[in-house]
Amino acid sequence: MIMDPLLFLPGPTYVPHNVRIAQAKPLVGHRTKHFRSIYRETVDLLKDLMYTENDVFILTSSGTGAVEAMIVNIVNEGDKILVPVFGAFSERLCEIIRIFGGTPIPLRYEYGKGPTYEDVKEAIEKNDDLKAIAIVYNDTSPGVTVRDLPKIAEYSKNEGILVLVDAISIFGGDKLLVDEWKIDVLVAASQKCLASPPGLAFISVSNDAWNVIKSTKKRAYYFDLEKYRQFDRKNETPFTPAISLLYALNESIKTIMDIGYSEWIRNHEKRANIIYEELHKMGAEPFVEKDFRSNTIISFAPPKGIKPSYVVDIMASKYNVYLARGMGPLSEKIVRVGNMGYIGIREIRLLIELLSEVMGISKSR
Amino acid sequence: MIMDPLLFLPGPTYVPHNVRIAQAKPLVGHRTKHFRSIYRETVDLLKDLMYTENDVFILTSSGTGAVEAMIVNIVNEGDKILVPVFGAFSERLCEIIRIFGGTPIPLRYEYGKGPTYEDVKEAIEKNDDLKAIAIVYNDTSPGVTVRDLPKIAEYSKNEGILVLVDAISIFGGDKLLVDEWKIDVLVAASQKCLASPPGLAFISVSNDAWNVIKSTKKRAYYFDLEKYRQFDRKNETPFTPAISLLYALNESIKTIMDIGYSEWIRNHEKRANIIYEELHKMGAEPFVEKDFRSNTIISFAPPKGIKPSYVVDIMASKYNVYLARGMGPLSEKIVRVGNMGYIGIREIRLLIELLSEVMGISKSR
Repeated sequence: MIMDPLLFLPGPTYVPHNVRIAQAKPLVGHRTKHFRSIYRETVDLLKDLMYTENDVFILTSSGTGAVEAMIVNIVNEGDKILVPVFGAFSERLCEIIRIFGGTPIPLRYEYGKGPTYEDVKEAIEKNDDLKAIAIVYNDTSPGVTVRDLPKIAEYSKNEGILVLVDAISIFGGDKLLVDEWKIDVLVAASQKCLASPPGLAFISVSNDAWNVIKSTKKRAYYFDLEKYRQFDRKNETPFTPAISLLYALNESIKTIMDIGYSEWIRNHEKRANIIYEELHKMGAEPFVEKDFRSNTIISFAPPKGIKPSYVVDIMASKYNVYLARGMGPLSEKIVRVGNMGYIGIREIRLLIELLSEVMGISKSR
Repeated sequence: MIMDPLLFLPGPTYVPHNVRIAQAKPLVGHRTKHFRSIYRETVDLLKDLMYTENDVFILTSSGTGAVEAMIVNIVNEGDKILVPVFGAFSERLCEIIRIFGGTPIPLRYEYGKGPTYEDVKEAIEKNDDLKAIAIVYNDTSPGVTVRDLPKIAEYSKNEGILVLVDAISIFGGDKLLVDEWKIDVLVAASQKCLASPPGLAFISVSNDAWNVIKSTKKRAYYFDLEKYRQFDRKNETPFTPAISLLYALNESIKTIMDIGYSEWIRNHEKRANIIYEELHKMGAEPFVEKDFRSNTIISFAPPKGIKPSYVVDIMASKYNVYLARGMGPLSEKIVRVGNMGYIGIREIRLLIELLSEVMGISKSR
């Protein structure tokens, strides 16, 4: 392979050279002042990006580890949790709740649609003993963003239930204001819109969430958030963290801050608009209804007669460019383009050019 | 700081440049053939180092995550597990068993001693309803190695109980033969004797362990070993792994293989012997009884009148050389030297030189 792989995956995403090389710094002990200083700085930067004063912890795990941490620390046996289900990751949320003894109350949608404020309000009205709503802000599997999240969160809080949000595939790539939107627990990860390597996950925890966590029966050790809080007070983590990944994360957030966070977010939107527009010109229609379209994962059905697997395979084998197919039932229905992190307009133009060629070749077969 | 930190910590350890730089390679998707090939190769290399035909999985977590995986997949509510307790990590094993509903049967030792075959045999004879023995091969907190592990494991297997081993701080640095010793579940980690950065943990699972896992009530998602097995069949991991850490691990194991694994292990022993001998000459006596001394963590009590914290602090502040104090009750009793991974005799000589100077300075104050 001569050309470096070009990733338009829904994570991991392209990681710029300065971030990758930051990992190569010599290791330090995780109980030393050098570690404490990079830990504190990085957590504080994450808080800035999340717009929160809540506690934020860095876990050494994939994003799913943080989702587990969110559930196992909050949910007791028998607790009812409302879960809008509109993709594989909202299904996963239900499964995790079930494994830890909770009862997910699913609010189901056809793939390509997502929950609105009105639906959720109605569901909460119908279920008067909910402990929380657990919601995926951006479900990666169809590429659906819940645009009503701020209103949903506010309503839920007013009804006295906790707001748990999986923002893994959108944090850093679209608007997200943890405190203003009243999100109690938020989970995110390093390898998506922050353009950092995979292996770190983040979780923010509000005071209301802490009050619940205090009374939750402990069935976690590695993901026990009280341990993270206790060590955070010393600017440390309870268990050996992935130190070299922390170096990378620190560097990637500083890169984002240099560009300007609002600019960084706007770039995601601009690129998304170009991709949707150009796909439309090629006869490749967005899979998701207009009001729910994601800026970070663009899913589309290729023009008639062209299989998603064909598009994805040719892009990979001929050009070393990586897109994703749909997950599960969507695997031969859609192609997904990860539009996350540090991608330039130049790469977007290249993507369009290659997609139009590949889909053209296929048409003329 | 001009000099790179020199780590004689019980993890993370010194990571050579080629391993650190391996992390900087461009990312690939974790559902691509590029990933599958490095995944398969690395897992197979780990199996070689463990001398096992059992399944081996790589988890994105610290070693403690893998300990949790070992316990939560094996232990049902009420199960009795024999645990020799001789340091902080064997205490932790009890705590994790308790959190997941099991009943640890502790076999306690004074710090500085460890379990023998005879003790364990007697304990197993006294408890006829044990499901497993969970044992730390090398407890990092006092620096105790269980030299009788092969006999303990064999006896336990003959009595029909599972053998669960935490080998985190010794795997790669001392003798360890998973299949020959009849170890059912072994956990280890990247940042110790393999001289790789922290963030990956390993777990091996025998057929007997799988038979138990099948009937264990699922209370894990991120650490559900059946998921890892299912994805391993496709040379993948169930959740996004720390890909850049996998690059490093692959490189570090190849470095070890180039040196020769037996040679690599022998180097740990040789270095340990030199350190113990030189410390003795300085009047710094090993904390651990002769039969239980670790080659990977050398703990010693400084000469009379010199505080461990003084030694550790001066080494760090003056020379950027990192040692550890004891944990918990041992914090002002011992200094611990991590002798793990890719350390040369040159660095050992330097360590001796600096220790003798620092402990000398202190004496003449």
